[in-house]
Amino acid sequence: MILLIQGANMVWLGKREPEFYGTTTAAELDAIVLKEAAARNLNLQIRYTNIEGEAINWIYEAASNGTEALLMNPAGFSTAGFALRDCLKAVRGLPYVEFHITNVEARSIRPVTSGEANGVIAGFGIDSYVLALDAIQRILARKAVPAGNSN
Amino acid sequence: MILLIQGANMVWLGKREPEFYGTTTAAELDAIVLKEAAARNLNLQIRYTNIEGEAINWIYEAASNGTEALLMNPAGFSTAGFALRDCLKAVRGLPYVEFHITNVEARSIRPVTSGEANGVIAGFGIDSYVLALDAIQRILARKAVPAGNSN
Amino acid sequence: MILLIQGANMVWLGKREPEFYGTTTAAELDAIVLKEAAARNLNLQIRYTNIEGEAINWIYEAASNGTEALLMNPAGFSTAGFALRDCLKAVRGLPYVEFHITNVEARSIRPVTSGEANGVIAGFGIDSYVLALDAIQRILARKAVPAGNSN
Amino acid sequence: MILLIQGANMVWLGKREPEFYGTTTAAELDAIVLKEAAARNLNLQIRYTNIEGEAINWIYEAASNGTEALLMNPAGFSTAGFALRDCLKAVRGLPYVEFHITNVEARSIRPVTSGEANGVIAGFGIDSYVLALDAIQRILARKAVPAGNSN
Amino acid sequence: MILLIQGANMVWLGKREPEFYGTTTAAELDAIVLKEAAARNLNLQIRYTNIEGEAINWIYEAASNGTEALLMNPAGFSTAGFALRDCLKAVRGLPYVEFHITNVEARSIRPVTSGEANGVIAGFGIDSYVLALDAIQRILARKAVPAGNSN
Amino acid sequence: MILLIQGANMVWLGKREPEFYGTTTAAELDAIVLKEAAARNLNLQIRYTNIEGEAINWIYEAASNGTEALLMNPAGFSTAGFALRDCLKAVRGLPYVEFHITNVEARSIRPVTSGEANGVIAGFGIDSYVLALDAIQRILARKAVPAGNSN
Amino acid sequence: MILLIQGANMVWLGKREPEFYGTTTAAELDAIVLKEAAARNLNLQIRYTNIEGEAINWIYEAASNGTEALLMNPAGFSTAGFALRDCLKAVRGLPYVEFHITNVEARSIRPVTSGEANGVIAGFGIDSYVLALDAIQRILARKAVPAGNSN
Amino acid sequence: MILLIQGANMVWLGKREPEFYGTTTAAELDAIVLKEAAARNLNLQIRYTNIEGEAINWIYEAASNGTEALLMNPAGFSTAGFALRDCLKAVRGLPYVEFHITNVEARSIRPVTSGEANGVIAGFGIDSYVLALDAIQRILARKAVPAGNSN
Amino acid sequence: MILLIQGANMVWLGKREPEFYGTTTAAELDAIVLKEAAARNLNLQIRYTNIEGEAINWIYEAASNGTEALLMNPAGFSTAGFALRDCLKAVRGLPYVEFHITNVEARSIRPVTSGEANGVIAGFGIDSYVLALDAIQRILARKAVPAGNSN
Amino acid sequence: MILLIQGANMVWLGKREPEFYGTTTAAELDAIVLKEAAARNLNLQIRYTNIEGEAINWIYEAASNGTEALLMNPAGFSTAGFALRDCLKAVRGLPYVEFHITNVEARSIRPVTSGEANGVIAGFGIDSYVLALDAIQRILARKAVPAGNSN
Amino acid sequence: MILLIQGANMVWLGKREPEFYGTTTAAELDAIVLKEAAARNLNLQIRYTNIEGEAINWIYEAASNGTEALLMNPAGFSTAGFALRDCLKAVRGLPYVEFHITNVEARSIRPVTSGEANGVIAGFGIDSYVLALDAIQRILARKAVPAGNSN
Amino acid sequence: MILLIQGANMVWLGKREPEFYGTTTAAELDAIVLKEAAARNLNLQIRYTNIEGEAINWIYEAASNGTEALLMNPAGFSTAGFALRDCLKAVRGLPYVEFHITNVEARSIRPVTSGEANGVIAGFGIDSYVLALDAIQRILARKAVPAGNSN
Repeated sequence: MILLIQGANMVWLGKREPEFYGTTTAAELDAIVLKEAAARNLNLQIRYTNIEGEAINWIYEAASNGTEALLMNPAGFSTAGFALRDCLKAVRGLPYVEFHITNVEARSIRPVTSGEANGVIAGFGIDSYVLALDAIQRILARKAVPAGNSN
Repeated sequence: MILLIQGANMVWLGKREPEFYGTTTAAELDAIVLKEAAARNLNLQIRYTNIEGEAINWIYEAASNGTEALLMNPAGFSTAGFALRDCLKAVRGLPYVEFHITNVEARSIRPVTSGEANGVIAGFGIDSYVLALDAIQRILARKAVPAGNSN
Repeated sequence: MILLIQGANMVWLGKREPEFYGTTTAAELDAIVLKEAAARNLNLQIRYTNIEGEAINWIYEAASNGTEALLMNPAGFSTAGFALRDCLKAVRGLPYVEFHITNVEARSIRPVTSGEANGVIAGFGIDSYVLALDAIQRILARKAVPAGNSN
Repeated sequence: MILLIQGANMVWLGKREPEFYGTTTAAELDAIVLKEAAARNLNLQIRYTNIEGEAINWIYEAASNGTEALLMNPAGFSTAGFALRDCLKAVRGLPYVEFHITNVEARSIRPVTSGEANGVIAGFGIDSYVLALDAIQRILARKAVPAGNSN
Repeated sequence: MILLIQGANMVWLGKREPEFYGTTTAAELDAIVLKEAAARNLNLQIRYTNIEGEAINWIYEAASNGTEALLMNPAGFSTAGFALRDCLKAVRGLPYVEFHITNVEARSIRPVTSGEANGVIAGFGIDSYVLALDAIQRILARKAVPAGNSN
Repeated sequence: MILLIQGANMVWLGKREPEFYGTTTAAELDAIVLKEAAARNLNLQIRYTNIEGEAINWIYEAASNGTEALLMNPAGFSTAGFALRDCLKAVRGLPYVEFHITNVEARSIRPVTSGEANGVIAGFGIDSYVLALDAIQRILARKAVPAGNSN
Repeated sequence: MILLIQGANMVWLGKREPEFYGTTTAAELDAIVLKEAAARNLNLQIRYTNIEGEAINWIYEAASNGTEALLMNPAGFSTAGFALRDCLKAVRGLPYVEFHITNVEARSIRPVTSGEANGVIAGFGIDSYVLALDAIQRILARKAVPAGNSN
Repeated sequence: MILLIQGANMVWLGKREPEFYGTTTAAELDAIVLKEAAARNLNLQIRYTNIEGEAINWIYEAASNGTEALLMNPAGFSTAGFALRDCLKAVRGLPYVEFHITNVEARSIRPVTSGEANGVIAGFGIDSYVLALDAIQRILARKAVPAGNSN
Repeated sequence: MILLIQGANMVWLGKREPEFYGTTTAAELDAIVLKEAAARNLNLQIRYTNIEGEAINWIYEAASNGTEALLMNPAGFSTAGFALRDCLKAVRGLPYVEFHITNVEARSIRPVTSGEANGVIAGFGIDSYVLALDAIQRILARKAVPAGNSN
Repeated sequence: MILLIQGANMVWLGKREPEFYGTTTAAELDAIVLKEAAARNLNLQIRYTNIEGEAINWIYEAASNGTEALLMNPAGFSTAGFALRDCLKAVRGLPYVEFHITNVEARSIRPVTSGEANGVIAGFGIDSYVLALDAIQRILARKAVPAGNSN
Repeated sequence: MILLIQGANMVWLGKREPEFYGTTTAAELDAIVLKEAAARNLNLQIRYTNIEGEAINWIYEAASNGTEALLMNPAGFSTAGFALRDCLKAVRGLPYVEFHITNVEARSIRPVTSGEANGVIAGFGIDSYVLALDAIQRILARKAVPAGNSN
Repeated sequence: MILLIQGANMVWLGKREPEFYGTTTAAELDAIVLKEAAARNLNLQIRYTNIEGEAINWIYEAASNGTEALLMNPAGFSTAGFALRDCLKAVRGLPYVEFHITNVEARSIRPVTSGEANGVIAGFGIDSYVLALDAIQRILARKAVPAGNSN
């Protein structure tokens, strides 16, 4: 199973700053992403929270129950989510791909969690979710083959 | 309906740093403010929380259920409440007046949420609550008349 | 008597950056504010200056001739008005409410005089003037009753 | 009764960055610390949370129900726990000893809560918990004797 | 045609800081990337340079001769490539995906060119090249369909 | 043997800023600390100096003559004692516990030597000396048992 | 009519720091500049002031009485003239060319007013005045022809 | 003749922040200082202003009419008096002694004008005025003897 | 002969950020500027480069072959052109006028080369080129008359 | 008795940076200063040291043996003398006048010890020593009369 | 073979800022250095460039063709040569000695390339070249003997 | 005679941070360096101190007794040795070569004394001592020949 966490304010997608985030709602987004996951044979669970500590709880739960990987759009936790960052550091064995709808760098936002990710994807709109699925698939595939076989 | 949120540590009012915040307790304050609201025919609901994400939940709820305006004393969320700030940015259609008991500038505190408010009131002690009611009343009154009619 | 000082560039109101300050002129504004003051039984005098030292002269004059309170929109003196700030510090017995037409925080302006005020109001357009009258009225009312009677 | 709060990510002790925090688990640690407390006749309660606002709730509860002292390892709240800091400032009558497993200074971490503590202990590994018990015992002992008798 | 530019020092790939960049050489990398491009029906040209102004020359050439898109690993130009950044800003009609082998954020490197990209990919090792091909393919596909058709 | 160094200005204890450091004199303090050391079977030597280089001389001497551990209150050397810091780094095999009478963090003092200590204790008044004895005892005890046996 | 303002300390020209400003006096300079203006058929008025607010008064006067353009050497107002800067922002319809006798950048001076100018000229000694006349003549000429005709 | 300028807010002496400046009024101070000047055979003129540009006017006047020396307490001009500083630089042949009632350094105030003085005296309360008279007397005496005669 | 260098990205003029730089192309600009030069009897050569070191080569060449003066729009070299700055410092005998199409100060750009120029002109659009010709003509004229004759 | 301490490098007076400090030697200076002291009936002792801790030793000695006042030119201890500063803070009952030969502010030197002085004198060359004697005489005279008698 | 690279602006040696760099020309310098190299039996090649990327090309070439060591005076590349710095990091097996004619520290220049060198020599004028030859000779000699033999 | 000073902590060479400084002891180093000096006919004296003021004493002594030159490894005085720096400035006629065992720049250490040296050598391990002997020899040789003879 793969866990996808939507951070603070994502529940309001489609209504919030549409010039940045577009008009697709959270529900519509879930449908799109779950369909793309199914097409890749990925068993995906999507959860939303506005409480940083709740996201931390879920990540430790994931690290304990055999979840294969973590995808997260930290969203509103990006600027002050230092506890979340420490949590990600604590579960480094769990593959983690971070993604953002917008090109955060172009907007001078530098999420404190990015440094803990295997990789980061930003700026492709809703396609950031799909590219994140591609990316995690590749990471999991590499873990399944013997080391030293790098190309 | 108008929602008034009391941020982190406000529940302890009257016992906490009385040299700054005075000795009126949270319960006494509620009675004063509700009475002033009633005198202005404002339907006011007051809620307290120490958890930033819970405040965010309530604001999205307000933005969805026809609440007319938001008043908030961000209190303990002032310094690191970036997720709360993003939330306020997300619901810009909802009039928002921010207020503080003390003159925060004089104490070198610069709440990260202030920039999202229609207006800010600070430093009048408990009267800050009453002036905030006056201010929101004026904002709602202006919204009720046609544009272009600025005085 | 209450003195209201309009700082540097306020004389140009209505013609200057109307996207921030609106199209009401200084003369129209005076009429509105004086009418609101009269309705509150406040004897208000409004003075304009572009010279910081002249504002300082008036404030010492006010502190000497029985003026009850000072209202000021420091405007163009906000960024480098350190002599003005020291003057305000010198006359602390004189109640002072500072106000701004715009939400200065939202525009990254932090007036050096704010820390000397009893309270600050910002961002309500022309209503900032009216709310400042309400605020000074409450401050003066509190001074008229015995201490220890905080609500 | 004495309350000991374990801040964000402490639940993961033993599995998280063992090069810094060692391999003792949270459960093992609890057993050690409770035993040491019992040996000192201290009635100790240990609670874990990843949610800053929940820690604040517990501290106000402690300040209301006769708890004698607070011990806390703020852990993941160290960098952005400003609301927690304000809460500690609000309950200054309650003795508070802060402690850290590692020498935070050596790792360039400066917890925002430290300035509110009676004292701080850092860098002794699990012994930091035991030394914190010693320290709180001394603070409580001093409170029990008349002032002016400083040694 | 799609142009892929390898910035300063990429010619030395495989021999340079292998703990960061791996042991695949530039020639081996070209073979891998060209094969992946062919599998996607992308006509890809790869060019290497250590001279920032030469990269600028190629980009203006690409903007003039019908090149469909630009992929670039700015590499050694990341820290001081301001002229390159201005050039990218000058050709904004040309889709541009920037990518890096390592998670630059985790290494505290913030390329000055990133803000000009449609999107950025970083941290997937050699897979960053393949994900960049996927990304540019999606960007080109979207340009081929009518607007308003966002999912 | 254990060496305890009292840094610059400690000789003036009891007369110097008593609101911070109390009224116990250096001689009275020595008596208290030596008695506590004896009760723990620790052979303690206390030395005072106002000259940073003299403290450095003593530390190298200690590192050469079989001294078991170093306790130090760097006091007046805290702000600019970089040579002292390098010296501590040079003798890392020698256990070192740093302590301060006051909670230095609460006074915005960050000693440059702290990062070189095994652990730091601050803010317990004269009890900081006693807790430092407890701490060094625990460190020496752990060194006496085989590694891998961390609790 | 064109107004040329000489800022603080310009009245002392010729006697003040001649290694920077030369030995031409203010009176001699006026003669030269008025003659050059006459040769260009420009109706020029030159005024001197050491009081920032007086310069502001003159600029609002100019913006009200049909003055065609403003030339100014801000001189002593360069470092702290924020009220003057706001005034210039208020009268943006009035063409403004700023000039300096010396190359201010080479002397690490960055006038706060420069950002409000149509253009800036610096470093040509007394010729800076003449080039400023040329520049304002070109700006006025371009305003006299229909838009879209940029060369 | 010697000119002594009292900068912004000095007119309020005795009523303004008496914990810093004492309770002697401006009029009483003038009497004291003039008497001390007379005792030294110094012809002293004292002038007060709150307007920086007016002080500049007076200084140029002094530099033109044979005034022998300048004494000044810049007071409220200390923080942003850059035009005043440039003026002092312009009249360097005129001996200038700057003085302050308080030890400005101890209060973290660093007047921008100090660097232009022959000497600075600060922190002796009203005696700063008297010591400034002594200092200027010595400077004038040295100017009256041939060079090379340095002790 | 006079050399005019167009720095990085100028070749793309007319297509690049037209809201800043207008729609005149490089070829059209050359025609205008050469015509204006001819009208002033100036023998002008215009060269473009995107490579900072190539500009340096040309400047040393100019300093060796009797070129009378240098005009340059450093453009894309403005932010990091430190080698170019050192080169300009090396050829100080060669008159150099720097110019920019836009008011760089208003856009928060501070070219590192400006401090080496005889004078700087910025913000007059294409007229900046013409004013630069006027300026260099005046500088060359002054060099042709005996010193001491400053107006 | 009054102690005058000459800080680091003062022993080299007359040979060291004569453009700042003049050519009078330390021995000549001592003769001048002792003679001026005698003329004022002051019993003065002058001591030189290059070792900061030695100066600290002497100050504690002075604070213990009835020395009436301290004069010091901290010289080479000015920049990093934090231990010395703490020492001065420790002996606040002892009047302390700090002085410097040069106008340290004009040279951008800000001695860390200045904030602990009763008053500071700087920039009068060797006369700084004489003015310091005058200053300490006035301070001691005021201490000898009853409080409340401020002029 | 040993490669010596002369960075930007070195070609102008002898004519450029002679107060820093002397009057020896590049050609004369080459003769001196080659003669000193011959006297040490070192096969030295000297190359000049003003283009940073060209220097990078030569360094990779050297790392590929058996060149034994690199000497470089980065000169004009010192401030912004980040690509050059990354290149040096890429070829760490190649011994590299950096040198400068002047004491760069004394002039507040901190070359970004210095951290990649085996050693740095600065401030000996032309002798810096000779000492660099001595230094590289010692480094190569040590590489020729077995490890563990450190003196 | 040439004086070589070993700064704070050098006495511990061989035992201190051997990964940086190697395993040669101070005694072994002295033997090596004295032998190299003898081979060059240099009369060298080596002194060690941990006390900054003692180093200052020795340098003034050297400047008085005909010592020809100073070599120094400031070591532990590098970060806060401001008094030492002023001392070096005071004896500028005395040739001074500063050297460091490690490449201090690569470790982000910037000794405050370096700017006062004739030249600096860093990063060659123990060979830094030998190269410093070579360097001082060249400096002394140049002083012995007539000026104008620069190679």
